[in-house]
Amino acid sequence: MTDRPTPALLLDRAALDHNLAAMAAVHPGRRLRPHVKAHKCTALAAAQQAVGHTTFTCATPHEVVGLAAAGVGDELLLANETVDLDRLRAMAALDVPVLVAVDSPETVRAAADAGITACLVDVNVGLPRCGVAPDRAGAIADLARRAGLDVRGVMGYEGHLMMVTDRDDRRARVAAAMELLRAAHADVGGDIVSAGGTGTYDLHGDTGVTEVQAGSYVAMDTHYAQHDFPFRQALFVEGTVISVSSDWAVADVGLKALGMDHGNPTIEGATVWFCSDEHVTFAPGDPVAVGDRVRVVPAHIDPTMALHEAVWVVEDDVVVDRWPIDLRGW
Amino acid sequence: MTDRPTPALLLDRAALDHNLAAMAAVHPGRRLRPHVKAHKCTALAAAQQAVGHTTFTCATPHEVVGLAAAGVGDELLLANETVDLDRLRAMAALDVPVLVAVDSPETVRAAADAGITACLVDVNVGLPRCGVAPDRAGAIADLARRAGLDVRGVMGYEGHLMMVTDRDDRRARVAAAMELLRAAHADVGGDIVSAGGTGTYDLHGDTGVTEVQAGSYVAMDTHYAQHDFPFRQALFVEGTVISVSSDWAVADVGLKALGMDHGNPTIEGATVWFCSDEHVTFAPGDPVAVGDRVRVVPAHIDPTMALHEAVWVVEDDVVVDRWPIDLRGW
Repeated sequence: MTDRPTPALLLDRAALDHNLAAMAAVHPGRRLRPHVKAHKCTALAAAQQAVGHTTFTCATPHEVVGLAAAGVGDELLLANETVDLDRLRAMAALDVPVLVAVDSPETVRAAADAGITACLVDVNVGLPRCGVAPDRAGAIADLARRAGLDVRGVMGYEGHLMMVTDRDDRRARVAAAMELLRAAHADVGGDIVSAGGTGTYDLHGDTGVTEVQAGSYVAMDTHYAQHDFPFRQALFVEGTVISVSSDWAVADVGLKALGMDHGNPTIEGATVWFCSDEHVTFAPGDPVAVGDRVRVVPAHIDPTMALHEAVWVVEDDVVVDRWPIDLRGW
Repeated sequence: MTDRPTPALLLDRAALDHNLAAMAAVHPGRRLRPHVKAHKCTALAAAQQAVGHTTFTCATPHEVVGLAAAGVGDELLLANETVDLDRLRAMAALDVPVLVAVDSPETVRAAADAGITACLVDVNVGLPRCGVAPDRAGAIADLARRAGLDVRGVMGYEGHLMMVTDRDDRRARVAAAMELLRAAHADVGGDIVSAGGTGTYDLHGDTGVTEVQAGSYVAMDTHYAQHDFPFRQALFVEGTVISVSSDWAVADVGLKALGMDHGNPTIEGATVWFCSDEHVTFAPGDPVAVGDRVRVVPAHIDPTMALHEAVWVVEDDVVVDRWPIDLRGW
């Protein structure tokens, strides 16, 4: 097929364009604040910007600084807490407006001390992670304003609901979580109510959120494929078959090339048995030979992207571009 | 404690030195062919060389070429199959002697075509992965010799036995697997019988192997800690507490900083609930505050190392060195 070295991360341009259009149809422009942690790739963020999304969500200061350096985005949100003054200062020094999430006196103080000028109050809406209890959000907002921060609103990530299987159940639980967020917003003020992810992107029509933070939709994975979404699988890890035995074959796509926290990857028409550091052992449907190429579909795209230096953009299996995964690391 | 940015990969120098000495006492010099896939760090390989091990095992051509460029090792084994002619040629061009594993006519031909001069026949001893069936090893050796390769012996990785819980059971099953390897060796010839890993390093006293390929012993992880081994936990991912709630706290060590294929990491004195991309949520034993540092112990060190650009070498929590993880990627 090709002689690009393997394992090779491939992004199908047609599927990507389909996904970009499908999401922009539901959440156009600033209604979507794409989460770049899903891909950590400024070129892919630029593709999201090209279809109208100009604000971005980041999980690390490194992603914020990298997006700014690439000139992508007109407002960047660090949807995460940090008390790292050097990293906060680096974000404060950017030309592009930066908002950071705060959920405690310590994170408010660090942001203010570092010269950050604007924030969202991060509210716990049910996922046991960051975020202040809803009834304490107003107090954090007061604290932030007294520290000189412009409190632009609230965010609350309902991550615990992304994989609720039944759509009606998911919708009801998202609505309940967003009720908490709206109540907190009433105490906090500001023009932004930010929430959501790919798993709940279609359930925010009447939840009162002003923007959705979805990221994984651009490339998809087998985990989100369990939902009946209009997004197509756009990301693959291409491997080479390096060994064929009686009942199984092995390709050079191992757990160092795949995010494994959601379990094994899949191979169309084959049964994946297990992954080792640099191998996937699988039972092929049709016979394969040493040297054949196989496409492995990751179970979780976010950490998969972060394992590769670059992604090959392909059209009908022909490479048309190579995009560095340039926001990796911290 | 310190202001090094987090998540930070830490290697405890005293524990490392202990582990190096404990392994070298059992398998001195060339009796151990350390597997660099465990750490992907030429500085750490140099530390292994400093205690007497001068031959190395690699999982990728990139590891072979990188070790050679660093001047570490006097004989390098690619314990894996490849038909990538460019990468085979790059290894063939090195000054240091290189052996590659072969298990099929295709891998023999690729090695010979690329100018590789020496190989081991990779034998399946029970793990369904690479390796020729034991009774076909002699035929592959004949093929390799006819292709002009110096057949130096056999290798057979009993990876399926690394985590057999009961030591006596593990010993018996390793002995049976090595019987297969010895039978293959009788057909293949050569001076090398290479096998083993950290999980079985102490069971090769009378199996007929000439060298053991262990790697993870240098740093350990919670997976191998289930065995009663003399090795100490030397590797940690240090995080900063970024959020504290009623029953849980969150540190900035997520699944992008941890190999997750063996499950969740652990935190001493705490209960880990789950990991997100950039977070670990845990129930602390003693109260923690935002800004505190925590040490997270990975479940699997090999893929954890591969996620970080560098490791901080510490003595009593003081950084004494910074070693690049320079063999990452492919």
